[in-house]
Amino acid sequence: MPRLCMPAMNAPEHVTTLEETLEFAAQAHAGKPQLALALRLIRNTGVKKRHIVQPIEKTLHHPGFEARNRTYETESKKRTPRVIQEALANAELRARDIDAIIYVSCTGFLMPSLTAWLINTLGFRSETRQIPIAQLGCAAGGAAINRGHDFCTAHPGSNVLIVSCEVCSLCYQPDADDIGSLLSDGLFGDAFAAAVRGEGGVGIDLERNASYLIPGTEDWISYAVKDTGFHFQLDRRVPGTMEPLAPVLRVLAKDHSWDAGKLDFYIIHAGGPRILDDLAKYLEVDRRLFDEETPAPGASGMIAGFGPGITAEMALATWAADGAPRTFA
Amino acid sequence: MPRLCMPAMNAPEHVTTLEETLEFAAQAHAGKPQLALALRLIRNTGVKKRHIVQPIEKTLHHPGFEARNRTYETESKKRTPRVIQEALANAELRARDIDAIIYVSCTGFLMPSLTAWLINTLGFRSETRQIPIAQLGCAAGGAAINRGHDFCTAHPGSNVLIVSCEVCSLCYQPDADDIGSLLSDGLFGDAFAAAVRGEGGVGIDLERNASYLIPGTEDWISYAVKDTGFHFQLDRRVPGTMEPLAPVLRVLAKDHSWDAGKLDFYIIHAGGPRILDDLAKYLEVDRRLFDEETPAPGASGMIAGFGPGITAEMALATWAADGAPRTFA
Repeated sequence: MPRLCMPAMNAPEHVTTLEETLEFAAQAHAGKPQLALALRLIRNTGVKKRHIVQPIEKTLHHPGFEARNRTYETESKKRTPRVIQEALANAELRARDIDAIIYVSCTGFLMPSLTAWLINTLGFRSETRQIPIAQLGCAAGGAAINRGHDFCTAHPGSNVLIVSCEVCSLCYQPDADDIGSLLSDGLFGDAFAAAVRGEGGVGIDLERNASYLIPGTEDWISYAVKDTGFHFQLDRRVPGTMEPLAPVLRVLAKDHSWDAGKLDFYIIHAGGPRILDDLAKYLEVDRRLFDEETPAPGASGMIAGFGPGITAEMALATWAADGAPRTFA
Repeated sequence: MPRLCMPAMNAPEHVTTLEETLEFAAQAHAGKPQLALALRLIRNTGVKKRHIVQPIEKTLHHPGFEARNRTYETESKKRTPRVIQEALANAELRARDIDAIIYVSCTGFLMPSLTAWLINTLGFRSETRQIPIAQLGCAAGGAAINRGHDFCTAHPGSNVLIVSCEVCSLCYQPDADDIGSLLSDGLFGDAFAAAVRGEGGVGIDLERNASYLIPGTEDWISYAVKDTGFHFQLDRRVPGTMEPLAPVLRVLAKDHSWDAGKLDFYIIHAGGPRILDDLAKYLEVDRRLFDEETPAPGASGMIAGFGPGITAEMALATWAADGAPRTFA
């Protein structure tokens, strides 16, 4: 059965705290009627600090879409190799053992995809399949795991490298001052991550996957594509989406003869505390796990990411060893 | 075995002939030293006419990246439903029978991907997997077939819809006057296509797939991403890439106990006659097939697309019935 090994993650060295974010927002949008609500929403996210690739002063300046996309390319090439090396080491594999690279990123655009540069630079075989995914936003990590699962099932014995590269700070738009923009300005950071899946190694065994699009919600999380680049648009109804999605997660678990409310671990990509709180509420999960409590081998769990669409990418997995992913709900 | 059914294609109603293209180029770039070579290269492509979504006068005017991307969205939503309906009919399936949509497009950028709109609008199930691929350029069609093959293998009995939506005319950059830009201005048109794969139906059975990146060629076909959108960059070495790729195609066929030079059909996505001529030369293919000569059931063949990377996406297939794809080498 395909096994997702322990991921590697790089958080850039420039740090912005919640207090700094609130200060910057108050300065930049002083006098605007929506400011008070925006500050309150940012505070409620519970995001204490964020890591970004450039100093905050440089981040707040928009040098144009072209210059920003060049920064995206430079930073990606600088920071992805180290997480890839670490992820390969976690899986006890070398670059030449990899059969496909799934690359997810929606905060910059390159063609060829960065996959070509990675193959040329890091010793992957020329035969490595390239699967770049640029349009699934926050659901792309979950989608990458699920498509990697599918690839390994279709090609038994193969290994897939998953690379995530998001430089959200390069999508900061100084002129955007609606509530959704202000909230997202206070929510997202930059990070680079990689994980390898195949057979064997330390990790979790993926058993089943599914996807679900909530009907009629295309414009709840979206980009406006402008001459100044990608403008992130967030609808105020997004935090309420766990109510319609919880029954979907229940069915997925039930189809696998599991109870979604009684799993041993939950690995959830969520943009804020409301998602996690609601998920626990609607799934009737009565306890929470943290980094310190690594599930026992054989423990059953769920992985889910939610993003534009509104799309949920979901998987069920069994803890195969003591390699603990880093984020828990 | 997964079967790729007969595709459907829509070529937009506005037509530009080779002679018109040469005229426009001569007017727009009069007096430039590279003009004569560009006109010769355009003439050599053998592309007699191209279909585009807007009248040529409008196409030649650049209204900004934002306005162009809006046109991309409008035209995609207007033109993909009809080819999807036709592709579903070719496969004798309904929208609700589809388990995954692979959407390939590199000439505009939407998030969510158009897949969300298609699911909401055309009656696909909410559980349909979305696999948008935006960064594989001309190789994306081949990649879509191969990833569809993998998906059907991983999920036996499933059906995958492949949608291709390319509006190359929206990447015309009036200021770009290097040879590569001028050549691509004279080469590409707009088109919308769809195909369904699953089990049964009329089509070809896909048996094996592979990918290959020619080392060190990342910048031979690429986009420069600028404030004015995507700028297509083409290196003069691209037409010579069949010499290094032919041995790769030979190995693929040999691994399948087939002879790459003696197949019954070749379905090749190629940007110009040199690719086809060289492929025939290096594979030692001694005859050519045309639309009129549909291969017999059981005939063996090859599908290949070449794009940025330089990446080749390749597949081997058997003719399962008399549904004939539309392009042959």
